[in-house]
Amino acid sequence: MSSPIIMSEFRQDPITGRWVIIASERSKRPRHDGRRDDQSHSLPCPFCAGNETMTPPEIWAHRENNTQADTPGWSVRVVPNKYPALESGGRWSAGDDSLYRSQAGFGTHEVIIESPDHVVDMGALSAEQFTKILRAYHRRTRELQTDPRWRYLLLYKNHGARAGATLEHIHSQLIALPAVPKEAADELNGAKKHFQSTGRCIYCEIIQREGERHERLVSQSEHFIAVCPFAPRFGYETWLLPKNHVAAFEQSREEDVTALAHALSDLVSRLNRALNNPPFNYVIHSSPPQQTALPYYHWHIEIMPQLTRAAGFEWGSGVYMNSITPEDAARFLRDAAPG
Amino acid sequence: MSSPIIMSEFRQDPITGRWVIIASERSKRPRHDGRRDDQSHSLPCPFCAGNETMTPPEIWAHRENNTQADTPGWSVRVVPNKYPALESGGRWSAGDDSLYRSQAGFGTHEVIIESPDHVVDMGALSAEQFTKILRAYHRRTRELQTDPRWRYLLLYKNHGARAGATLEHIHSQLIALPAVPKEAADELNGAKKHFQSTGRCIYCEIIQREGERHERLVSQSEHFIAVCPFAPRFGYETWLLPKNHVAAFEQSREEDVTALAHALSDLVSRLNRALNNPPFNYVIHSSPPQQTALPYYHWHIEIMPQLTRAAGFEWGSGVYMNSITPEDAARFLRDAAPG
Repeated sequence: MSSPIIMSEFRQDPITGRWVIIASERSKRPRHDGRRDDQSHSLPCPFCAGNETMTPPEIWAHRENNTQADTPGWSVRVVPNKYPALESGGRWSAGDDSLYRSQAGFGTHEVIIESPDHVVDMGALSAEQFTKILRAYHRRTRELQTDPRWRYLLLYKNHGARAGATLEHIHSQLIALPAVPKEAADELNGAKKHFQSTGRCIYCEIIQREGERHERLVSQSEHFIAVCPFAPRFGYETWLLPKNHVAAFEQSREEDVTALAHALSDLVSRLNRALNNPPFNYVIHSSPPQQTALPYYHWHIEIMPQLTRAAGFEWGSGVYMNSITPEDAARFLRDAAPG
Repeated sequence: MSSPIIMSEFRQDPITGRWVIIASERSKRPRHDGRRDDQSHSLPCPFCAGNETMTPPEIWAHRENNTQADTPGWSVRVVPNKYPALESGGRWSAGDDSLYRSQAGFGTHEVIIESPDHVVDMGALSAEQFTKILRAYHRRTRELQTDPRWRYLLLYKNHGARAGATLEHIHSQLIALPAVPKEAADELNGAKKHFQSTGRCIYCEIIQREGERHERLVSQSEHFIAVCPFAPRFGYETWLLPKNHVAAFEQSREEDVTALAHALSDLVSRLNRALNNPPFNYVIHSSPPQQTALPYYHWHIEIMPQLTRAAGFEWGSGVYMNSITPEDAARFLRDAAPG
């Protein structure tokens, strides 16, 4: 009997209301047996220059003049995910069942390939390449922001096998969703509540407080500040925030994107020095595309080294245990300033 | 400069309201460098019979007659966690800060050592030993249930390094909390809402539906049913539920505990056969100790094999991606019937 699902599907737990994506096509990813923490080291690597035909046709690339799409000559290349969790062919249509709710797996799933060379360590990138990558993020989110079908854009990186990456060649992913997902909704609602009761953006308050007291400060530049949050889920979790209030990442100005590239590069270098090239995830937290001028929300990047694993206690309670205080983590990262 | 925290601390994220436990003492656990997925294979193992002095004094043990506490002669032994996430010495008292909320790390943290021998595979246990383990769970939760300080009891197992276990000798953990944690509150609220609108326990409805249609049924006995849930977070996630409506695990009758031991043993054997001894977590989901007769809540065990990792998308969205449909998983586990 074959699987009843061809395309992916959103399904909702009838008790908690939690949504999941069932994407059975993704189990076909190369060398990923669904079991081990190994990554593919197989050659040829589909993300290396020269192997462009191994991916779906490119959506966009930063290219040298006079080079053609899907050929070498690019420095950052954006392609559809070959094993997408979501697809834009369908519609955001509900399943029909009295007990169980489901929806077609409607969305987009892009991969941002961050180097034409087989680079596996973000810390090895030049400042120039870092800037090109951040500009690609900016460009793609600005583009998707204009599509009224998408209610949330989630740009994230899985770096290292232990952080969930199945290919080691550096890349990030961008998923457009037809609804605001739970984590983002919780943030937006919490920030809105704070604004309604105080008249202030809570992120602006955090920036002011951490910038004054320094106990959880990692680093700061003219435009950005990196802090370990007061209640981190993960050891050495660090948030990178723009000092000026901007709700949506894609509303950042060009020059801010360059400054962000420097700040993010500095932070990755600190993590690599302090923790010996740890696996990590980062996620850009931004306001929904249709709400880019919110007074209460403040875009930022959350970087989460994956040194330990969430386990039974976390799955059962939703409460994360962390054995490193953010005050200790911040001190350690402050002291790991790049040479 | 030493860490500002001696005891552990609950901290709340000021934006989302999410609580974490910062337990810096836990970073001292043996051989656990906070980094690798390795477990300790060092001898002597603190959980083996003969090494009782390596743990704090026992709270309770299933013992042969005429053997003394903290000496050999036990088959299941319960001790305080040597590196507790929470401690009962403090009070549930609030920190004092206008922006950030914290509380003393108030609670208990016990370890249930599930064999006197150095057993690392639950599947290797006799039916008799399985029953003794479940009776220990029952006994300890009944005991803690009577303490008015505890508003939630969380009993869970981390099995295998990739599921977060730091010692390989089989064991489970029991944490008593001074408040109902988020995941449990979400379940209780969702189930209550369903009851209010339909007059029925949603778990009873799920049991009826899955028992009739069989598409996500793994196995059933007279008193228990194992099903893959409609919207699983993890590949091969399976829920084990009592067929009769009982809100709290500790309200189960003695004979039901024996039947549960058989059902759980059957399920672990199926997972081991189907997935070649996978790492897994399980969590007993039960009603709060002060609310053991709820008409809308139904205790159960959620078993979560850890074959892949939650990554950037999950951390950013709260939406889990799963590449195995529960219908396929259930069929696979049905076909993996023990001997």
